[in-house]
Amino acid sequence: MRKLLNEWDREADGNTLYSIVRDLFPLCRSITGDGLRESFSYLGKYVDITLHEVPSGTRVFDWTVPREWNIRDAYIKNQRGERVVDFRSCNLHVLNYSVPVYAKMPLAELKQHIHTLPESPDWVPYRTSYYRDDWGFCMSHRQLSRLPDEEYEVCIDATLAAGHMTIGELRIQGRTNSEVIISAHSCHPSLCNDNLSGMAVATLLAQRLARLPLRYSYRFLWMPGTIGAIAWLALNESVVPRIKHGLVLSCLGDPGKFSYKRSRRGDSEIDQAVENLLFHSGREYQIFDFSPYGYDERQFCSPGFNLPVGCFMRTPNGRYPEYHTSADNLDFVTRDSLSESLRHLLEVVFILENNSRYLNLNPKCEPQLGRRGLYEQVGGKTQPRREEAMLWILNLSDGEHSLLDIAQRSGMPFPDLFSAAELLEEHRLLKKLEQ
Amino acid sequence: MRKLLNEWDREADGNTLYSIVRDLFPLCRSITGDGLRESFSYLGKYVDITLHEVPSGTRVFDWTVPREWNIRDAYIKNQRGERVVDFRSCNLHVLNYSVPVYAKMPLAELKQHIHTLPESPDWVPYRTSYYRDDWGFCMSHRQLSRLPDEEYEVCIDATLAAGHMTIGELRIQGRTNSEVIISAHSCHPSLCNDNLSGMAVATLLAQRLARLPLRYSYRFLWMPGTIGAIAWLALNESVVPRIKHGLVLSCLGDPGKFSYKRSRRGDSEIDQAVENLLFHSGREYQIFDFSPYGYDERQFCSPGFNLPVGCFMRTPNGRYPEYHTSADNLDFVTRDSLSESLRHLLEVVFILENNSRYLNLNPKCEPQLGRRGLYEQVGGKTQPRREEAMLWILNLSDGEHSLLDIAQRSGMPFPDLFSAAELLEEHRLLKKLEQ
Amino acid sequence: MRKLLNEWDREADGNTLYSIVRDLFPLCRSITGDGLRESFSYLGKYVDITLHEVPSGTRVFDWTVPREWNIRDAYIKNQRGERVVDFRSCNLHVLNYSVPVYAKMPLAELKQHIHTLPESPDWVPYRTSYYRDDWGFCMSHRQLSRLPDEEYEVCIDATLAAGHMTIGELRIQGRTNSEVIISAHSCHPSLCNDNLSGMAVATLLAQRLARLPLRYSYRFLWMPGTIGAIAWLALNESVVPRIKHGLVLSCLGDPGKFSYKRSRRGDSEIDQAVENLLFHSGREYQIFDFSPYGYDERQFCSPGFNLPVGCFMRTPNGRYPEYHTSADNLDFVTRDSLSESLRHLLEVVFILENNSRYLNLNPKCEPQLGRRGLYEQVGGKTQPRREEAMLWILNLSDGEHSLLDIAQRSGMPFPDLFSAAELLEEHRLLKKLEQ
Repeated sequence: MRKLLNEWDREADGNTLYSIVRDLFPLCRSITGDGLRESFSYLGKYVDITLHEVPSGTRVFDWTVPREWNIRDAYIKNQRGERVVDFRSCNLHVLNYSVPVYAKMPLAELKQHIHTLPESPDWVPYRTSYYRDDWGFCMSHRQLSRLPDEEYEVCIDATLAAGHMTIGELRIQGRTNSEVIISAHSCHPSLCNDNLSGMAVATLLAQRLARLPLRYSYRFLWMPGTIGAIAWLALNESVVPRIKHGLVLSCLGDPGKFSYKRSRRGDSEIDQAVENLLFHSGREYQIFDFSPYGYDERQFCSPGFNLPVGCFMRTPNGRYPEYHTSADNLDFVTRDSLSESLRHLLEVVFILENNSRYLNLNPKCEPQLGRRGLYEQVGGKTQPRREEAMLWILNLSDGEHSLLDIAQRSGMPFPDLFSAAELLEEHRLLKKLEQ
Repeated sequence: MRKLLNEWDREADGNTLYSIVRDLFPLCRSITGDGLRESFSYLGKYVDITLHEVPSGTRVFDWTVPREWNIRDAYIKNQRGERVVDFRSCNLHVLNYSVPVYAKMPLAELKQHIHTLPESPDWVPYRTSYYRDDWGFCMSHRQLSRLPDEEYEVCIDATLAAGHMTIGELRIQGRTNSEVIISAHSCHPSLCNDNLSGMAVATLLAQRLARLPLRYSYRFLWMPGTIGAIAWLALNESVVPRIKHGLVLSCLGDPGKFSYKRSRRGDSEIDQAVENLLFHSGREYQIFDFSPYGYDERQFCSPGFNLPVGCFMRTPNGRYPEYHTSADNLDFVTRDSLSESLRHLLEVVFILENNSRYLNLNPKCEPQLGRRGLYEQVGGKTQPRREEAMLWILNLSDGEHSLLDIAQRSGMPFPDLFSAAELLEEHRLLKKLEQ
Repeated sequence: MRKLLNEWDREADGNTLYSIVRDLFPLCRSITGDGLRESFSYLGKYVDITLHEVPSGTRVFDWTVPREWNIRDAYIKNQRGERVVDFRSCNLHVLNYSVPVYAKMPLAELKQHIHTLPESPDWVPYRTSYYRDDWGFCMSHRQLSRLPDEEYEVCIDATLAAGHMTIGELRIQGRTNSEVIISAHSCHPSLCNDNLSGMAVATLLAQRLARLPLRYSYRFLWMPGTIGAIAWLALNESVVPRIKHGLVLSCLGDPGKFSYKRSRRGDSEIDQAVENLLFHSGREYQIFDFSPYGYDERQFCSPGFNLPVGCFMRTPNGRYPEYHTSADNLDFVTRDSLSESLRHLLEVVFILENNSRYLNLNPKCEPQLGRRGLYEQVGGKTQPRREEAMLWILNLSDGEHSLLDIAQRSGMPFPDLFSAAELLEEHRLLKKLEQ
């Protein structure tokens, strides 16, 4: 596993992640349709992704998979026949899932179908209407305010018809069938941080894990938000009992500090793992308690499942002004932020893979570390860090405490404790308990 | 129940509450006697109060109901026959429960029976001697210091004889026999905040509840402090197991911020209810942990009962200089403070009446709120408050969490959650669990 | 027990404690040998100490008792035959447990055996090499830097041979066989705070307890650090289940504030006792959570024992610059600090001896304290402290709470509560529960 961490290359990985985001940016994704399908196919360049097609009309718990939406073109033309709003230049211009429309109408009527952001007058908002038949355009408030009062021709050349909803999946078999799920919602059109960043980071993470012998099996899911997660859970209920840990990935490309939103349980192993990592990162970070709004942790943490799934982000949804606007573009995410996000996730995996309970084989008093060469030879000085780690592990390895529990109580970083545990195991002072 | 909150009228209720305080102020109450009896009869103008008469000598746990005390007149006359201290002008002038006395004595001897407040030289203290035969006068320190050194005639025309101790009670039958008790000590003579305010607020609260269909039965108790509560508990032990919640009311008329003293249990439902209310009041407030001194929560929370009874106040006993002095008078309490106290208590009742556990009938993933018209139609914007409330309830309604538990975890005010729960119930997404 | 506290004399006890430290200072202690033996014999002037001799080679858990070390003389002579380093002037000059050596060598070679403290250039460090055959000298960095580059004669006239390790012990039989252990490591040569202070304070504490009827039996242990504690535990495993509380004493003579390091359990009775004492001391103090480095609490709190043993100190090991240097000398410790440390320990014993669970014999409502003369006669004033203590005890004496639990919840000092409990017991309002 340590190899994994060493293989990470800040610059090269940053470039790769950014290129994935850049390549996927122009595609018009939605919760169904060819844009989504093509995005997943593109990821196939990096990982062995499997596409599942769920037919429109499929009942998934309280929901129904909607008709498939595809769009070819859309515009608003003025009286001179000029496209004043053009889908081809920015796919956010169309209310996502708009029904087809072709009509001429005066400005007043048109305005009832226009969405803008008066508080950010130069940005185009991102809006959707998946479950109510509607059509609309999104544009900058400044542009709207300058439109002359005349008749306009509006066209949305879209289809909404029986088809499928596509889910991308990759399962990596580990030594055990216990699973870690990593999920990234993939339904947003040209928005970089939310969530091309999550899609890209999940992809490279999957690529790295696929090369390695692993303790857990890992299941990566690229899915439409909400309906995708609900469908996957409905269609994979038998997998649920095997899920031991999980993370939802989103907003991993902006330059903000890292954020972690705890699982509903609040103190599950994944929560401990991410918090230990961030605590010792030497950087500012934020921890949020679970709340039932946000990303697909809403579904994984619904009371009928209550899975130990948290959400790993940099600046969270709704906390940056660019969120759900045309300003969440290729300038908003950076190579370095993406790369660091990948690094942190590799470290989380390192912790999960290596977090175990051990048994101190000499539980009465300390074993003599000195004669095994594990202890400073000349006594009387301040205790070095490695000795502290060994003593903490020996003291708390009563079968009750995992390495992460010991990390929490000792205030030490997980990797230091893990190295010390390996050393103690080598010297037959410690025995790893079967999981 | 919402009707109840709407009927509250800040100004009219403030006026009524103040008029009760004003009318009761001149009566010389004590733990027994006609002043107490008349005060309860006066409350009969507003509520259907029942008077219980407990005979002197009745054993109540470790205590005995004392002889009944009544007083007609009392004074200290100087050599010119002038009343320098006159019970008729302020009933605090007499040590409450003084034995009768008629004597002439020099100032030095008299002084052994005089109580003053040197630190507040213009105020008359309130002092009692219920259980040791004694007599005395209370006066301002300034007045005492100016009394010439001469002989004085002292007279306390009181009787201390077998009789009764009076307790006022009103029970309102609800749908269940589970009870909420509201108690206000009523034994203090001319003191407004402590505790005419509590007596008055309890009275109007009872008046409002009596009009309504209720879940709980409510028992209002106006009683002499300590001995009254002890007697009531001794004579009503069979009621005790039905008491689910309770509040002691006191000091509700001063302009200070609200205070709540938790029950001995510290985390009972009444504690959660009052704390949720105060937390969301948008105003400063104070929470105190239980301590075994204060008002009749001492008895309700004695270890043999350990009832979930807290104490609701504005400025607590002993924390304002006017406490137990003649300055706790009609100027110290305000109509608006009294009225707001009533309002807060109506809101506490609202919470108790509506706090339930619910079961999410779609526990696996979220139900589709949108197709039921419960969700913002155009997606992509910030979550509105009502949706947050619904999501919290759905997420935590696993049968373990009451609405108050959900309020605590979500940080939302109870009424918002209750409205959301009603809506979800209407839409058959939630089922209220039997209590 | 109160007598015990009254007999403490700040000045006289300070003088005695300091004289013990002063008399023991010159002896060259180690984990074995005559210096250790003589030190324990000296303590026999004050207490009836028993010396146990554990043979070299004895297996004690994972350890083996080492050969006995004795030293007669040691020096470094320059070319003019002058002793530039002389064991006779300061026994820290020799690496403790050095093998014998006699040789001539140039400065460069000698330097490989010299330990100094560059950051404190005038102090001689204290260094040991118990378990690896080595020899060495410790000296001030300044002196080392001035040594001319010439040939030196080095001599360590020591023996390392089969012998014994000595442990000093005193057991005081109380009414029960439940034990409190008090341990002080005794293996350091001329170092005053660490740990002649602990040895001396333990001695006077034992002397005082030996005179008294006690509830617990007390076992005092003066032992070499680590190997001594390990040997004692290995040879006395049958005693372990009787140990109810324990303290390791160290660093009790410096003028710093008091420190307490909690037992591994973190909330044992000894932890509560010391924390209550320090909280109400009116002085600054520090509490540390358990960590598996420090003194012999490491062994007592190893997972196979997990005894409720904390460590009582003034400035902890490693947190003062004089630690483990020649500056931890007779100037560093003060009579007053030593005396106060003894006083605090007497108070801890007072708490342990008197901490009990009681049963309120009138659990329903308060008993009438007034008619028993336990309550202020004239009502209406602020509650005095003694009444508060009685009310807390009555309220919480439901069989679940010890006096220390009540102290914690009420925020009152233990002695006030104990006095109140005695009074309530006298009046048959409270019954002490069998332990």
